[in-house]
Parts: sequence; C-alpha cells; structure tokens
Amino acid sequence: MSQSKAAISPRRAENFPSWYQEVVRQADLAAMSHVRGCMVIKPWGYGIWELMQRELDQQIKDRGHDNVYFPLFIPLSYIEKEAEHVEGFAKEMAVVTHHRLEKRDGRLVPAAPFEEPLVVRPTSETVIGETMAEWVQSYRDLPLKLNQWANVVRWEMRPRVLLRTTEFLWQEGHTAHATEAEAVAETLEMHQVYESFARDWLAMPVVAGEKSPTERFPGAKRTYTIEAMMQDGKAVQAGTSHYLGQNFARSAGIEFTDTDGARKHAYTTSWGASTRLVGALVMTHGDDDGLCVPPAVAPHQVVIVPVLRDSSPAVLDYANRLAEALRAQRTRFGRVRVHLDNRATRPGDKKWQWIKRGAPLLVEVGPRDAESGTVSFRNRFEPHRQQQLPLSDFVTSVGEELAGLQDRLLARATDRLDEGIRRDITTREDAESHFREDGAGFALAGWCGSSGCETGLKPLGVTIRCLPSHLSADATTCLVCGTPSNHSAIWGLSY
Amino acid sequence: MSQSKAAISPRRAENFPSWYQEVVRQADLAAMSHVRGCMVIKPWGYGIWELMQRELDQQIKDRGHDNVYFPLFIPLSYIEKEAEHVEGFAKEMAVVTHHRLEKRDGRLVPAAPFEEPLVVRPTSETVIGETMAEWVQSYRDLPLKLNQWANVVRWEMRPRVLLRTTEFLWQEGHTAHATEAEAVAETLEMHQVYESFARDWLAMPVVAGEKSPTERFPGAKRTYTIEAMMQDGKAVQAGTSHYLGQNFARSAGIEFTDTDGARKHAYTTSWGASTRLVGALVMTHGDDDGLCVPPAVAPHQVVIVPVLRDSSPAVLDYANRLAEALRAQRTRFGRVRVHLDNRATRPGDKKWQWIKRGAPLLVEVGPRDAESGTVSFRNRFEPHRQQQLPLSDFVTSVGEELAGLQDRLLARATDRLDEGIRRDITTREDAESHFREDGAGFALAGWCGSSGCETGLKPLGVTIRCLPSHLSADATTCLVCGTPSNHSAIWGLSY
Repeated sequence: MSQSKAAISPRRAENFPSWYQEVVRQADLAAMSHVRGCMVIKPWGYGIWELMQRELDQQIKDRGHDNVYFPLFIPLSYIEKEAEHVEGFAKEMAVVTHHRLEKRDGRLVPAAPFEEPLVVRPTSETVIGETMAEWVQSYRDLPLKLNQWANVVRWEMRPRVLLRTTEFLWQEGHTAHATEAEAVAETLEMHQVYESFARDWLAMPVVAGEKSPTERFPGAKRTYTIEAMMQDGKAVQAGTSHYLGQNFARSAGIEFTDTDGARKHAYTTSWGASTRLVGALVMTHGDDDGLCVPPAVAPHQVVIVPVLRDSSPAVLDYANRLAEALRAQRTRFGRVRVHLDNRATRPGDKKWQWIKRGAPLLVEVGPRDAESGTVSFRNRFEPHRQQQLPLSDFVTSVGEELAGLQDRLLARATDRLDEGIRRDITTREDAESHFREDGAGFALAGWCGSSGCETGLKPLGVTIRCLPSHLSADATTCLVCGTPSNHSAIWGLSY
Repeated sequence: MSQSKAAISPRRAENFPSWYQEVVRQADLAAMSHVRGCMVIKPWGYGIWELMQRELDQQIKDRGHDNVYFPLFIPLSYIEKEAEHVEGFAKEMAVVTHHRLEKRDGRLVPAAPFEEPLVVRPTSETVIGETMAEWVQSYRDLPLKLNQWANVVRWEMRPRVLLRTTEFLWQEGHTAHATEAEAVAETLEMHQVYESFARDWLAMPVVAGEKSPTERFPGAKRTYTIEAMMQDGKAVQAGTSHYLGQNFARSAGIEFTDTDGARKHAYTTSWGASTRLVGALVMTHGDDDGLCVPPAVAPHQVVIVPVLRDSSPAVLDYANRLAEALRAQRTRFGRVRVHLDNRATRPGDKKWQWIKRGAPLLVEVGPRDAESGTVSFRNRFEPHRQQQLPLSDFVTSVGEELAGLQDRLLARATDRLDEGIRRDITTREDAESHFREDGAGFALAGWCGSSGCETGLKPLGVTIRCLPSHLSADATTCLVCGTPSNHSAIWGLSY
C-alpha cells in the first residue's frame, strides 16, 4: 500500500461517522452483534478496556473505595421510589417478566411469570441504596465508599458501536456521607479523577464542568462531567459524577444516628465511566490509517513482525532476543508490553493490521537486521516513516519513545480542543450558521440561566455540554436570548 | 472472648449449614439481597474473588486465550438450536420480554414487548457460537481461544449464598479447533489449570475426573470436573471443562475450509469457574472461629490493629513503620498486602472481626511493642496463640510465615480429603447406611457403567461426582448392582 493511499476508507474528512465505523471494524475493536443494540467487544478492544480498568480501579481504590457486587435485577418497586429517577429511565429499561421456558405446541414460550417484574439495572443507585440502608446505622458507619464494575442495560433505539449500546460495561461508584460538604467533596474528587485519568492515560483533554439542570442525572442535585471533543467537533460525555443530596437516601431510607444522637438521612454520590471511552479514544486519536492507541493503554506497545513469511531461525531468534530485552525495560507505563506476531500471515498484511489497530511501535525484523544488529521501526504517529537504530539503543530508548508518543498524542488533541473552542459565536444567528456546518466544535458563550434558553438550541441538536470550571466566555450576553448572561457555557453537538 | 468459646455459633459439628451461613455473614463475605436468589458480594468477599480472578486470568492468558465480551441477552432462537442444551437450561432461564415501562392508572407496567423474547445468558455457548461462525472461515482462523468474565443467571428455587445463586459471576472460556484431538487437549489443559489453581492458590485439594453421562453439561460430549470435599463430607463442583465435539459448531454453523480444501465443522470446548469458589473456600478452611483465608488470596495478608482506642502517636508511628517495612517484602505471593486498621472501634472488636474474616496474620501493636521494638502476632491457624518477635525478625520472616500458613492449610485439607475418601463402601447396603449419616465423605467404588446404576442412589441424594483420573477403587463390583464394574467412581452428596 503506497503512502498516498489511506488504509481506511472513507477518510475522516469525507464521512466521519462512516470512518468511525470502519476504524472500529478494521482495528478489531468491537462489532454490533445480532442481538439488537448489543455489541461484541473483540480482543484488541477488550485489551484496551482492561488497561483502562486496571488504572482507574487502582485510582478508585487509592481513594479508599471498596469494590463490591450488587444484583443485576432491580424490583420495580425500588425504581419507583425516586420519582425523577424512574422518569429518566422508564423509556429504556429492559424488563424481566418470567423465569422459565416451556414447550407449548412445539415452541418454547416464557412461563412462570413474576408477581412483580424485575428491571435489568440501567444504573444501581436504587438497589445499592436499599442495602446501604441496612449497612448504615450510625455516623461510625460513614463514609461508605463502594464501587462496582458491571454491565448495565439501557434500551437504545439508535445504537452506535462502543458509544451508545443497549448493554455496556462500566464502573459505578456509590458513596454515602454524614454531611453535605463531605458528599460534595467526594463528587468533586471523583470528577477530578476522571479529568486527570482522561488526560494522563487516554491523552484525551477534556472540558470539565457542571451540567445545567436538564442535563443532570435523573434524581441528582448536581452533575459534573468531562466533555471530550471528537475530531468532528462533537462532544462525548466521558465520565460523570453526581451529587445526589438526600434524594436517594430518603427514598431508600439510608438513615444514621449522628454524633448528637439525632437521626439523619445520609448524603450520597454516584459516578461512572464506561466502555464508551474506547469509542472516544478512536475519535480522538484515529487518523486515515486507523486507530492510534496511546501507549498507556495499548495492550501491545511494541509489535514485532518478522518480514519473511517463512522466518529463518536466525530472524526468529533475533526477534525473540529483542522482545526479551524490551520486556525487561521499565517505562512510565510499567514494563514494556511486547508482542511477537508470528502468525502464518503475509508480513505486509500483518504490518497494516497493526497500523490500523494502532500499535504504538511497530518493528519489522528481516535477515539484514539480524545480521547487523539493528532495529527497523516506525511509530504510529508517523506510520510511513521507518527509522533505524542499533538494538541496544532502541531498547534503552523505548521508554522515551513511548512517552514521547503519548505526549505528542496529548499535545495534538489539546491543540485541536483549544482551536475547537470558539469564543466568537455570541448570538443565536452566529450559532445557527455555525452549527449547521460539520466539524463545528464548541461555542464558549454566555447563558442567562433560564430553562427556555438552556434548551433553546435543541432544534439544532445543540445543548449546553457543561458550565466549565476553568474557562470563561468573552461574551457577556446569553447566546440564545441576548440578555446579560449569568454563566459561561460550552454549547455543542454531542454523541 | 475466652479461648473456650468459639466466635461462630453454631459450631461446625452442631449444624454445618447454619455454621456456613453464619461464617459468610460474620466474615462480611456476602449476603442474600432482597432480589430473590441474588446476592450482594461485600468488600472482603469481593476482594478474595478479585485475587482469584487476577491469578486465574493470568493463567488463562498465559495459555494463549484472549479476553472478550459478548452480549448478556440471547435470542430464544439461538438457544433453541441445540436440543440438549435448551432442555438443560429451559427451567431456569430469566426471560426479558419488554424494553420500556409506562404509567397506566398510576402504576408502572411493562410496555413495548419484543417479537422474540430474549433470555438472560445462563452460559454463552450459543451466543458466542453465532459470532465464531462469522470469525472462522479457514483453518488459518483456528484455534480461536476466547474467555470472558461475566455475570450469568440461572433461576434458583433454593438459593444458597455464594454456592447457588440466581446470578453469579464467573469466567467462561470458549474455544474452537480444527481437530478433535486439539479440542480434547484444550479441554484437558484447562481442566488441569483448575486442578492446580485450586490446590496451589486456594489450598483446596480436589478429585479430578470425568463426569458420567447424566452429569455432563447439556450438549457436551465429555465434561471434566474438579470436585472438592467440604468439611461435612459433601462435594462442591469447583470448575468444569467441556469437550463439546461438533454439537455447537453444527447448530451455530462454525465451519471452516481445511488445508485439504474441504468444508468442516469446528470442534469446540468451554470451561468455567465461578464465585462459588469463595463459598467452597469457606467450607474448606473455616473453623469455629470463622473463616481462614489462604494467604495467596487474602486481600490483607497482615492486619495491624493498634491496641489502644485512642492510639498514641508513638504507637501509630510504630504501626506505620511496621506496615511500610512489611509492604517492601516480596513473598511467594508477591508483595505483602498489609492493612493498618485505624478505625475508631474497640480494639477487641477489631481483633475478633479480623479473626472471623480470616486474615492470615494479625498484629496487635501496643505501647510496650513500640518501646521494645517487638511485634506481637497470631496466625489464623492458631488464633488463640500469640507469638512475639523483634520487628526486624518478623519482617524478614513474614514471607515464610505466610507460605507456612498456606502449606498447612493445604496439608490439613488434603488429610481431610484423603481420610474422607472411603474405599470400604462396596455394596448398596453399605452406601445406604453410610450416606444416611452426616459428614459422609466420598465413596470410591465401582460402577458397572449402566445408566440405571448411575442414578441408582439418587433417592439418597448421592450421585457419581466423577470418574477420577488418578484414583482406582479397590472394589471390582458396581456399588449399586453388584455386577463387575467397568469404572472407578467417586460417589457422594453434593452442594
């Protein structure tokens, strides 16, 4: 394949949504299954998710949370207790009504119906709340800081692989506290964990901030979000953290005896991040040759491909020696993860497969390398430029090379985000002409605070993504109504 | 609490099933939830499971399997394709029939029914098979070696926490191969992985062998199992590995073009181990003071409890110094996992809590220890015997101490198993009088091979647990009918 021809068709600029589907397919990340709205996560995609999990799990544990596991099924009566919550999820809940199949007239049909139907968890506040109510008796039992890694189900009418699927995988943290201040601090701490995790591990810069009222989690007092900008200028909500006040504590009965002897309702929080992060990674770092995985979360950081179909023992020996030497290296991301691809596939096909999958460093080993003790490699940032180093130099510099790639990915994405935040869109007319184009990016503008204006651009598909914590609009008037603004807001299209 | 009084009531000898429930409760492992048949896995129980997962996951990956994730829901039509399979699971499948809730007359009711109901996976052979059929085209695509960590649902009429719950967590491996020989070798390899994992990590000796026909996985040609003996003499099936022949390949259409150009059906396998291993751990290593966790899978291997309620800074400093020194030690099980329990709870309560939870080593730090530089500790094998060592001696010997505890747990359990396998039960009359007692253990006896005799002791609750690979019965006649036997069999009661 020549340099002029891209590996992925269509290119990003031609048709971004189709390009995305094609990268997910060609990078072997995931596929929609025949089960409506549900996906299959393939080895390379799942490997990336496992590395995300491992790091995020450690950060969650380091902050004093314990992993637990709660039931998949939620009785309808639990869900009904919190009015806003059930309102928010009723339209997308899978309902289990029977617990047996029986043959009738030669066909299997559901039998043994439940008196009360069960719902497949769309999120677990209500079912965890019922248990918290039993575990929490006194201020001594607080804070209670739990987390679970689980699958959840929200019925999607328009599924999109990895980004919006009926079933997805996530972690959901659930905590209970004695005071409002402590619960708010917890909410913000986990919000910041998501922000730094996205930046430092996924090389994905985000705009962090609070959601406006209609965008809050159903039942929350406040929702904080990190919003990443994809290469087409649309936002992906990449992790949310909710301060739930006493809403769920009241509906589930999470009460405790405080130091003063009074019975009080606890203050709870919840926060989650999901497999859609893998989709966001694609749309942040992919290019016309496929995916580019940040080394921090790459299942294989270095892939070694022998260039002869029937590799000579000398070439294989050399490749193995290189792999061993690399595995002994410690980097910013721990031990180097090396894969020697020794399949009976054409070397050229293998090379392109690993480029499309986005392996950070690709080494091709031929007889000449084995003889001269050199390493011919390309990094995924510049897949068409092959470099060469003596083996020992390559081995000792691999940590630097990987760190450099991670940093360049972050810098490129940060430049894109910075350029994509427009401060010159200040009126409704500006917004209408701007957001009708593709690749629109975010508008950092004013909002008067009214609910009418909050949803005023919905006909364009534009919503307030967040009220950013670290950015202020230049404009001093509401983007929708033109009256003086009370908030700076990030407006945009979203996935 | 004096030495004469046990922490768990009733004692094992008084009422084993109640003792089990009580240990699970008092060791904070898990609890049945209000969602019928489903459990909540608490931090200490989940921590043990996570360590089991981590090790087993590594062993699975080391053998060339890739982790993936497949849908929770299975269309009824997939399940129906394999006749034995659907027969085996029809009575215990949760059925999803609607994907929305709507308010009618003020009550939420299921709305938006499916044309074809979905089943919540009881196991994933059928849904993974449909995808394998797409991924496998040629002999070059084989072997395909996949594994997933997931929740599964089998509706239980008589649930028992951790051992038999409607929802449980497990790993399920699914592989496809070009030849029968390769698939059988895979089945046996994973069978052996389970056997050595149980022995080396859970200190749980097992009898390994093949299942007799009626005990096979529905749809399998052969099922291999590891059977552990609990302290009441009953068996727990602790991990199974199935050779599926071409049954599932035929029903799902997993076909490939072989080297000779012919189209053939692949040979598949599946194998799984679940959270019931945590229950088996309790019934293997628990005693009248609670659980005893093998150091290999103990979330905290050393727990340090300051003995004064308002710990002086000197005591806390000393405890922290000890914790740091221990954490730097490498052992057979990796870095030492240390927990300093600094809660505002009475030290005596804390001590008993950690004994009941089964922390391998418990250190109590008082002012005198801090002054003299000593460590007062007890190991969970002998919880009533406190020992003392200078700090540096304790630190350097901690690896040995933990390894010694692991080995003693295995030795004790192995003695129990060896003693519990009776070779002198050779007739139906022997079996009837033997198995009517409690604490019956296994009978290693003959089986003629007939299906009538295979199920002949079912009225006693006794089944063939396996045809053991490494044991031969002394008896040469069938335990049930007395005719010459063709097989050695392990007969027993089971969970």
